Amino acid sequence: MSDRASKPVVLVIHGPNLNMLGLREPEIYGHTTLAEIDANLAITAAEHQVEVECVQSNHEGVLIDRIQRAREDAHAIVINAGGLTHTSVALRDALAATDLPVVEVHLSNLAKREPFRHESLISAVSLGQVAGFGDFSYTLGLQAAIQAIKKRSRIR
Amino acid sequence: MSDRASKPVVLVIHGPNLNMLGLREPEIYGHTTLAEIDANLAITAAEHQVEVECVQSNHEGVLIDRIQRAREDAHAIVINAGGLTHTSVALRDALAATDLPVVEVHLSNLAKREPFRHESLISAVSLGQVAGFGDFSYTLGLQAAIQAIKKRSRIR
Amino acid sequence: MSDRASKPVVLVIHGPNLNMLGLREPEIYGHTTLAEIDANLAITAAEHQVEVECVQSNHEGVLIDRIQRAREDAHAIVINAGGLTHTSVALRDALAATDLPVVEVHLSNLAKREPFRHESLISAVSLGQVAGFGDFSYTLGLQAAIQAIKKRSRIR
Amino acid sequence: MSDRASKPVVLVIHGPNLNMLGLREPEIYGHTTLAEIDANLAITAAEHQVEVECVQSNHEGVLIDRIQRAREDAHAIVINAGGLTHTSVALRDALAATDLPVVEVHLSNLAKREPFRHESLISAVSLGQVAGFGDFSYTLGLQAAIQAIKKRSRIR
Amino acid sequence: MSDRASKPVVLVIHGPNLNMLGLREPEIYGHTTLAEIDANLAITAAEHQVEVECVQSNHEGVLIDRIQRAREDAHAIVINAGGLTHTSVALRDALAATDLPVVEVHLSNLAKREPFRHESLISAVSLGQVAGFGDFSYTLGLQAAIQAIKKRSRIR
Amino acid sequence: MSDRASKPVVLVIHGPNLNMLGLREPEIYGHTTLAEIDANLAITAAEHQVEVECVQSNHEGVLIDRIQRAREDAHAIVINAGGLTHTSVALRDALAATDLPVVEVHLSNLAKREPFRHESLISAVSLGQVAGFGDFSYTLGLQAAIQAIKKRSRIR
Amino acid sequence: MSDRASKPVVLVIHGPNLNMLGLREPEIYGHTTLAEIDANLAITAAEHQVEVECVQSNHEGVLIDRIQRAREDAHAIVINAGGLTHTSVALRDALAATDLPVVEVHLSNLAKREPFRHESLISAVSLGQVAGFGDFSYTLGLQAAIQAIKKRSRIR
Amino acid sequence: MSDRASKPVVLVIHGPNLNMLGLREPEIYGHTTLAEIDANLAITAAEHQVEVECVQSNHEGVLIDRIQRAREDAHAIVINAGGLTHTSVALRDALAATDLPVVEVHLSNLAKREPFRHESLISAVSLGQVAGFGDFSYTLGLQAAIQAIKKRSRIR
Amino acid sequence: MSDRASKPVVLVIHGPNLNMLGLREPEIYGHTTLAEIDANLAITAAEHQVEVECVQSNHEGVLIDRIQRAREDAHAIVINAGGLTHTSVALRDALAATDLPVVEVHLSNLAKREPFRHESLISAVSLGQVAGFGDFSYTLGLQAAIQAIKKRSRIR
Amino acid sequence: MSDRASKPVVLVIHGPNLNMLGLREPEIYGHTTLAEIDANLAITAAEHQVEVECVQSNHEGVLIDRIQRAREDAHAIVINAGGLTHTSVALRDALAATDLPVVEVHLSNLAKREPFRHESLISAVSLGQVAGFGDFSYTLGLQAAIQAIKKRSRIR
Amino acid sequence: MSDRASKPVVLVIHGPNLNMLGLREPEIYGHTTLAEIDANLAITAAEHQVEVECVQSNHEGVLIDRIQRAREDAHAIVINAGGLTHTSVALRDALAATDLPVVEVHLSNLAKREPFRHESLISAVSLGQVAGFGDFSYTLGLQAAIQAIKKRSRIR
Amino acid sequence: MSDRASKPVVLVIHGPNLNMLGLREPEIYGHTTLAEIDANLAITAAEHQVEVECVQSNHEGVLIDRIQRAREDAHAIVINAGGLTHTSVALRDALAATDLPVVEVHLSNLAKREPFRHESLISAVSLGQVAGFGDFSYTLGLQAAIQAIKKRSRIR
Repeated sequence: MSDRASKPVVLVIHGPNLNMLGLREPEIYGHTTLAEIDANLAITAAEHQVEVECVQSNHEGVLIDRIQRAREDAHAIVINAGGLTHTSVALRDALAATDLPVVEVHLSNLAKREPFRHESLISAVSLGQVAGFGDFSYTLGLQAAIQAIKKRSRIR
Repeated sequence: MSDRASKPVVLVIHGPNLNMLGLREPEIYGHTTLAEIDANLAITAAEHQVEVECVQSNHEGVLIDRIQRAREDAHAIVINAGGLTHTSVALRDALAATDLPVVEVHLSNLAKREPFRHESLISAVSLGQVAGFGDFSYTLGLQAAIQAIKKRSRIR
Repeated sequence: MSDRASKPVVLVIHGPNLNMLGLREPEIYGHTTLAEIDANLAITAAEHQVEVECVQSNHEGVLIDRIQRAREDAHAIVINAGGLTHTSVALRDALAATDLPVVEVHLSNLAKREPFRHESLISAVSLGQVAGFGDFSYTLGLQAAIQAIKKRSRIR
Repeated sequence: MSDRASKPVVLVIHGPNLNMLGLREPEIYGHTTLAEIDANLAITAAEHQVEVECVQSNHEGVLIDRIQRAREDAHAIVINAGGLTHTSVALRDALAATDLPVVEVHLSNLAKREPFRHESLISAVSLGQVAGFGDFSYTLGLQAAIQAIKKRSRIR
Repeated sequence: MSDRASKPVVLVIHGPNLNMLGLREPEIYGHTTLAEIDANLAITAAEHQVEVECVQSNHEGVLIDRIQRAREDAHAIVINAGGLTHTSVALRDALAATDLPVVEVHLSNLAKREPFRHESLISAVSLGQVAGFGDFSYTLGLQAAIQAIKKRSRIR
Repeated sequence: MSDRASKPVVLVIHGPNLNMLGLREPEIYGHTTLAEIDANLAITAAEHQVEVECVQSNHEGVLIDRIQRAREDAHAIVINAGGLTHTSVALRDALAATDLPVVEVHLSNLAKREPFRHESLISAVSLGQVAGFGDFSYTLGLQAAIQAIKKRSRIR
Repeated sequence: MSDRASKPVVLVIHGPNLNMLGLREPEIYGHTTLAEIDANLAITAAEHQVEVECVQSNHEGVLIDRIQRAREDAHAIVINAGGLTHTSVALRDALAATDLPVVEVHLSNLAKREPFRHESLISAVSLGQVAGFGDFSYTLGLQAAIQAIKKRSRIR
Repeated sequence: MSDRASKPVVLVIHGPNLNMLGLREPEIYGHTTLAEIDANLAITAAEHQVEVECVQSNHEGVLIDRIQRAREDAHAIVINAGGLTHTSVALRDALAATDLPVVEVHLSNLAKREPFRHESLISAVSLGQVAGFGDFSYTLGLQAAIQAIKKRSRIR
Repeated sequence: MSDRASKPVVLVIHGPNLNMLGLREPEIYGHTTLAEIDANLAITAAEHQVEVECVQSNHEGVLIDRIQRAREDAHAIVINAGGLTHTSVALRDALAATDLPVVEVHLSNLAKREPFRHESLISAVSLGQVAGFGDFSYTLGLQAAIQAIKKRSRIR
Repeated sequence: MSDRASKPVVLVIHGPNLNMLGLREPEIYGHTTLAEIDANLAITAAEHQVEVECVQSNHEGVLIDRIQRAREDAHAIVINAGGLTHTSVALRDALAATDLPVVEVHLSNLAKREPFRHESLISAVSLGQVAGFGDFSYTLGLQAAIQAIKKRSRIR
Repeated sequence: MSDRASKPVVLVIHGPNLNMLGLREPEIYGHTTLAEIDANLAITAAEHQVEVECVQSNHEGVLIDRIQRAREDAHAIVINAGGLTHTSVALRDALAATDLPVVEVHLSNLAKREPFRHESLISAVSLGQVAGFGDFSYTLGLQAAIQAIKKRSRIR
Repeated sequence: MSDRASKPVVLVIHGPNLNMLGLREPEIYGHTTLAEIDANLAITAAEHQVEVECVQSNHEGVLIDRIQRAREDAHAIVINAGGLTHTSVALRDALAATDLPVVEVHLSNLAKREPFRHESLISAVSLGQVAGFGDFSYTLGLQAAIQAIKKRSRIR
């Protein structure tokens, strides 16, 4: 990655339909809105001297475009790819190509849902996963990303 | 859904490649163009005092964006998701999130085609399916959607 | 088919247990009885200048016997084969042998039910399917059958 | 179920080929004939103040017809569906529609036989299973049915 | 089997839809009618000093009833079970219970047809199979049955 | 087995978590405690002039140790192996090595539960199964074991 | 095929290990030797005014070489490919390339043997199959081949 | 759960071979020892006013015994079941029976390892999962457990 | 296709992440950039008197839009669909609808990579494939496309 | 490889039945004979200053013998293994043992053919594949082999 | 491993039910007792200047505890894990963690037994396997372990 | 087997590519040549008063021919069938037909290699297996064969 002054950046990617959070099926996804999640992540980030940039799109191509740029402007990625988790090899390839630590998060516990949600194409190109704790999954995932950034800077 | 004056609206979603209807593989899909189908649906809708809004896109993201808004501006959805029928969990999630009656339609009889077309990700989040009757599938599907709207208004 | 005076005939086949409609598991199959469905179909048929003949049996053999005669005395078939949908190759063969347009209907949305109901042996020998709209599936299926008769008579 | 004077009735259903008991493959099915089994069941029933009605048929349709009537004239069902156990969705649907306690019995231990006999379509709509004890499976199955009747009458 | 004067008897069983032979899908099943096949079999039988009795039914139960009696009045069975070949465990059990040599025949080459026709439940309880030679499959199958009868009588 | 004065012994094995009966998920397993079940079994045993010895452990090894000794001190085994039913080849081997009649029992109807509970490693080394009748499954299972002991003693 | 004076020729192919007939596992394959089978086939052929040429090899390549020449010097093929039946795509391709009627024969009933013998790569490129009748399978197979030659000559 | 003075307790369960941490395959599991992990968890717990009790065993039975007692003496469970994750239905049942929030943690990213490690029997009875972050997985898992305890106390 | 003056056009489609070539995982994809590949293809095209138009996008919809227009402005397609190769039925349908010769190319040898990359949805609607030769795959693929154009023009 | 004066050698291997090219199923494999293909390859080879040696055999063993010698007398291999592509582990092992660049070619597009032709045992030990372009597949494959030789000589 | 005076040690692990050898199912496992096997191994060991320590347990946990200590007090492991071979990931992990040569032995030829015995979880973490030779499998396995120790000492 | 003076003979069969030992992929197969292995086996054989005859061929047919003769001139077979292990039913049949003890050996541990090498067609017709110990597998395999010969001679 290119040199950057100041704080490390964690890119937070929200996949399709996550803009509906708080509206859509609250018995599965809870009542917190995406804006609230992003605000909470900014607070946690500030506590750890990092910045977060949050992006949501329903367009796979927009997400891939943004992830590709992360090689240049981010130090880690936290991603909840929504339905693309289970179907998008292109997204997986984009993540693998960044060469950054990737943390996969999910609001719900996928093991309790439909069988087609049990397989993630993203897991094998991520550092690890946090799933099932509602919006708190993002908070934990961000911590994991921050820790990964610290480890890398120690090593290099 | 928010209050709306006048007629109920049925959102008709045409997925990828349906803009090629009448041109593409007519032995499978027939000679009627998409414009003709949309015109016929408008006539049927008028007979039942409903409005139809027809949208076609080759972009999954555009379709999801439009479907998400349907919570606010439509009363039912008729969808032929084309190739996305078999591959898009994101589209499925968008439909499920609308909380509207969804009618899945297909021009061709999928059971006579390639095995990967036998499985639909959309069926389980739709009210029902109409498939195999060419453009008449849409006409029947619209009737099913209208009936579903009537039932809902009776119940509520 | 042999010559017949007057109106075309649509044979409506109800498979095993459909005689229990209105009694059996109404949360899945609704409260309408089979007699009411048949009466409704007769009305719709009359509107389109066709006749319907409705047959129900719990005996696969009786259904096959009746379907075989359809070559001689019917112009289309609407069939809800009940549990035989998923298990009877013999019924499938009987339908294929009629050389008539066959419309497969189901009251419930099979995609929401047990996995063994997701596969239909009849779909590939039918023109198309209508499923999930309760007794309205029959009404739509009858319309599809009538349209198929019209198309055939235009072609011949 | 409609009111009935006197004793509760347990309908005992014997599927295809069980009329051959004692003749057919005795190394698998034992030497007791079906008439002897029915006589034994009548004795056990009498001890518990219930009646049994035993029906055997090689015709799936006859069995379904009889099971459908059980809603009106029986309080529980004991069934050994023979070969239909593994193939008849229609029989399963008929049993489910009775809304009565169903006890599935088998003479032989299916787990020791051909793989296609390891899967039962009836198990999931029955209360429980007794298998592998020869004709004593019926005796135990009848006891289970009687106990279920008693529990129901206590609850109601 | 009970004693019988005169000639051995081969029971020929035709399953569902075989009464449509010559009418149904002649490109698969040929133009010969079932009556013609039965007549030819009688000639072949006469040449070998055996009798044939030919039975066709679309009812699984009727076929099973007839097969069960074969223990008493036949010396071998030639069977084309039609669609039941792939679905009827009950028919299989009936054949196995006769303890007679069973020859499975098919008009068409099942290996060239739909995958669900590649698996036969009857093969493993039959002596052998003849398939793919149109109505000549029956002629060869009858010869195989006659040879089996001869072998048995030599052994006993 | 070594000679033993007096009554035959039925070893009753309760696998992991069955000590939680009455506490754990009563909607699946009922409210009866294990002590109550064991007491009931003792009563039934007394009625049939047999003894029961009941053992529960959460340790697979403890269960295997006990089962191995059964060759010396028991005449039949009734076993509800709990979760080990589906996973323990070692337990299966221990049961097979006893050369005693084994009756497999389950409180719940496994066919209605998760797919991984549909397969039992124990069934094929047991005489038969009783499942789905709550604690009454044990009572029936004990009867089956007693009957097996009687049969054996008649034969020897 | 090139012109040939005199009688049509049926090429009989025996695959690997069939030279061991009469020696190898007689309980499966019988006591007749391959030489005896070939002699019997010559007699049957003579009765029908055809010639047979019998070839056995344990070498797949030798069999393919011979089959390729059959385009020039034979009118039909009877083949028992032995173990290659289930594994050799190359043999299948050679048979398909001859454009001759191919009759597949087997001594044993493959449906009663190991699962890997249930699938034949040759069936779909053959006219039909005869299996399970010991060396009589060859006799019947030869008749089927002769009939196919006759049909072809009538057609051309 | 019974009343307890003072702080809530989180039971931390370490399955088989986790006592080898720091020794065994450090390229997969890292260099931190189990004692160090437990010490770190105690610090984190103290920061959140909870207590942790850490248990390791290579014996499935010991783990189940301990988990069963958790109904009485713990408020949440954090578990890394090691190899039992993929094989122990008994452990799963024990966890489900506690009726406590369960957090599943793993040191390594299972999606990058052997296929048999991709399926967890524990996931569907846990609240959520944290995996892939080495010993930091435990820290995050503990936070998730603490948050779950807080939520529960708010709700009750 | 509409008339076009001058040279035939080969449309070269690069799917998601191919814009990262030379940057992303060079041990798999090599060091050549996409611009260099496109430049090389232009040279090869010029040598054969054809034009190439090269398009890259991470957006499935953009690719489909472009492919649909190819009916009007191109004579053949060379496509490396990247991750969409294995997941996009919509892309497959778009290619099939062009009625142009399609050549599928891949930089890497997919058979050496993850199992989900072994299946291509595009292969069956393409003329052929070239894979595994790095950027030279494109050069060979372009030659195949040019040869296909020549063949077509000869035939028409 | 041992030193060789003059030009590099590409060994071209043709598997079973490719000697029938031009004769066998021309609708799949085209009208060009194998001799013509070999002649064309010699011309292409000469243009690039390499030699080709072409070998065809229907005998797997002959092919393996020849491939083993290639370590000593060739610099690359182009192979169309015919039916052995899908069945011969021995051929695969022979190719892997040469330590030479291997290019797999096929005349037809295997993805459009029978499922058993979709899997190649050779792909994973080859550099890459060219398939579907008729005899032009060989020309392209030879170019790929020549380029691989050049790359190797640059590297060494 | 820590320094040890004198002879290398081979730890011989016998899994569940192997203490029943000579008693249990002798037609599969033979008549030799475990004590005899251990005595024989001690003799063979003495001939090669190594020591053997033999451990049997029916408790997975006991076996894992013992295997973990082997890092400190053994130079190789010979293991017959009995039923745990097919089910215990925990045992596999314990063996992998020892970093010692592991030789897997079995008395019987698993390929001739039930399908669930065909898969071993231990094979991939062992050096090699010896199976099917009764107690002689142990003798050969010990030789393999001794040879592995010698090789290691040569290398180090 | 025919009478033979002097020593028993063990036929050692080496399948395809084993003549490349020491040359081919030494990281998998080691550096010992086949000639060295054969020489070592002769020494071991001499120590046990048996003879070995070693045969290698890349031709399946040659191997089968040789194995067939073993009925007459050998007392046991040691076989490493190379790639044919996983694909040749014909070889399996040849081995089964010898009625001799067969010992299957492999140099490498197949469980650590590609999935298609995990299944052996030969295992179920062999006495047992030795795999994973390099050329020492042969030595152990020969001992197993000799022991089997001794056992047989004791029994007869």
